[in-house]
Amino acid sequence: MGAMGFQQDGGDHIRSRQNPRVKALSRLRDRAGRRDMGVFLVEGLRELSRAVEAAHVEEIYYAPELFMSPAHAEFVELIRARGGVPLCRLSESAFEKVSNREGSDGIVGVVRQWPAKISDLSLPEGVAPLVLAADSIEKPGNLGALMRTADSLGAGAFIASNPVTDIFNPAAVRSSQGALFSIQMAVSTPAEAAGWLRERGIKIYAAHLEAEKSLWQADFSGPCAIVVGSEKSGLGAEWDEFIDERVKVPMSGVSDSMNVNVASAVFLYEALRQRRLR
Amino acid sequence: MGAMGFQQDGGDHIRSRQNPRVKALSRLRDRAGRRDMGVFLVEGLRELSRAVEAAHVEEIYYAPELFMSPAHAEFVELIRARGGVPLCRLSESAFEKVSNREGSDGIVGVVRQWPAKISDLSLPEGVAPLVLAADSIEKPGNLGALMRTADSLGAGAFIASNPVTDIFNPAAVRSSQGALFSIQMAVSTPAEAAGWLRERGIKIYAAHLEAEKSLWQADFSGPCAIVVGSEKSGLGAEWDEFIDERVKVPMSGVSDSMNVNVASAVFLYEALRQRRLR
Repeated sequence: MGAMGFQQDGGDHIRSRQNPRVKALSRLRDRAGRRDMGVFLVEGLRELSRAVEAAHVEEIYYAPELFMSPAHAEFVELIRARGGVPLCRLSESAFEKVSNREGSDGIVGVVRQWPAKISDLSLPEGVAPLVLAADSIEKPGNLGALMRTADSLGAGAFIASNPVTDIFNPAAVRSSQGALFSIQMAVSTPAEAAGWLRERGIKIYAAHLEAEKSLWQADFSGPCAIVVGSEKSGLGAEWDEFIDERVKVPMSGVSDSMNVNVASAVFLYEALRQRRLR
Repeated sequence: MGAMGFQQDGGDHIRSRQNPRVKALSRLRDRAGRRDMGVFLVEGLRELSRAVEAAHVEEIYYAPELFMSPAHAEFVELIRARGGVPLCRLSESAFEKVSNREGSDGIVGVVRQWPAKISDLSLPEGVAPLVLAADSIEKPGNLGALMRTADSLGAGAFIASNPVTDIFNPAAVRSSQGALFSIQMAVSTPAEAAGWLRERGIKIYAAHLEAEKSLWQADFSGPCAIVVGSEKSGLGAEWDEFIDERVKVPMSGVSDSMNVNVASAVFLYEALRQRRLR
């Protein structure tokens, strides 16, 4: 039985927007609902395919009227044939009540949350660790984009310190484009994160406008973590005492700050460049 | 007289959401409205301050009930004292009908669009040109983010080739965070853009998954343009014949594509790094 009290009766087809299960699913938009139920929603064929491989998918809801390709029906049939994950059809109207997306593709999964504790992180072996940490991120879309950037630019782990939004927010899930399910990720305080990094001999770098050393002059060949601050106020004071080295990210133009995702990307790229050049 | 037929009568105060001028302003949310009226909306103190310096602001509307700091009232007083830009107070309710933002700060300007023709671009002198071109961008938020990235990472110009969204879309304006008003920008076809670049001896680079040369092995010290593709389908075929060199952007992880903004950022960063190292 899944999170919504779903029975594996096979022939389920919910038509009403007023159905209690539909109402429960729609509560997962809100953080309180996600906290109470311990699950979150993953929408879209691509993202849900990744979730099925990498996480505990408890239930899948679908509305064939909204399918965008034959691959959608094939996915549902594959899940049905494999067994283990209850499937339930929704009417278009009921689906739209559950969905967070405009232009949804008619597939949504209920996925069990995981603790994302820093003590559970495991770094890849045989390479110098490269970790991205982001402090006090406010916008869920940015949090998800950072997961994707960490994943696509070779970070071994991503740490969200004191995030304002939760990592299972629908906008974070969406903008991570599946990276949520592949990147090693932890939520922690700055002190916990710094302690964990230091225990492993990982040097902690941060971007600073006034730093003397440019990004390309720093040495990222050893174990290192890169800490970026929030969109609005930069890196929180809680991190201050833990920063081993500050480097200057090249910046021009009118913006008083660089987009946090862009800053993370150039940081990680520079580390990757230095490591692959060797 | 401004775009909305606004008279400089000083004492204007619109209370009704049904006021014809409020209705006209709310049409600027839609592309058709922006096209018909030739103007667009710029919301927020920071962005509008930049618009006032760099563009033709025709009218400013404000709702003091929504101001978030004393700087907001000071800005309005400064505009009034300077003269030249008609000011009009709106009720909170009327303002909300005009505004595209949740949590608006109560200031919005009507700004004249400009042609953004490629023939009007002027590159900075004394340095090798560095140009970012983005093809067929669909999401206005991405288009604005690219403007900001180009601006903050030292591109001399930004070219939007065949953009699906218009550069004056409210989400593009917002995510550009003012870069819309500072970066040299043009909208064009790929052929026009390539012709303009070639006339100036600017070499055209594109990211390609199968390229042999890594980003850091390419030489960006001369005049160069970097072309990135759309979020969904990558670089359009129209660009193919104009690409001088393809380079591989380092990528790992589950994503089959890198975020277009992240790809642009590492490209520009690498060019900047090579240039400043000299």
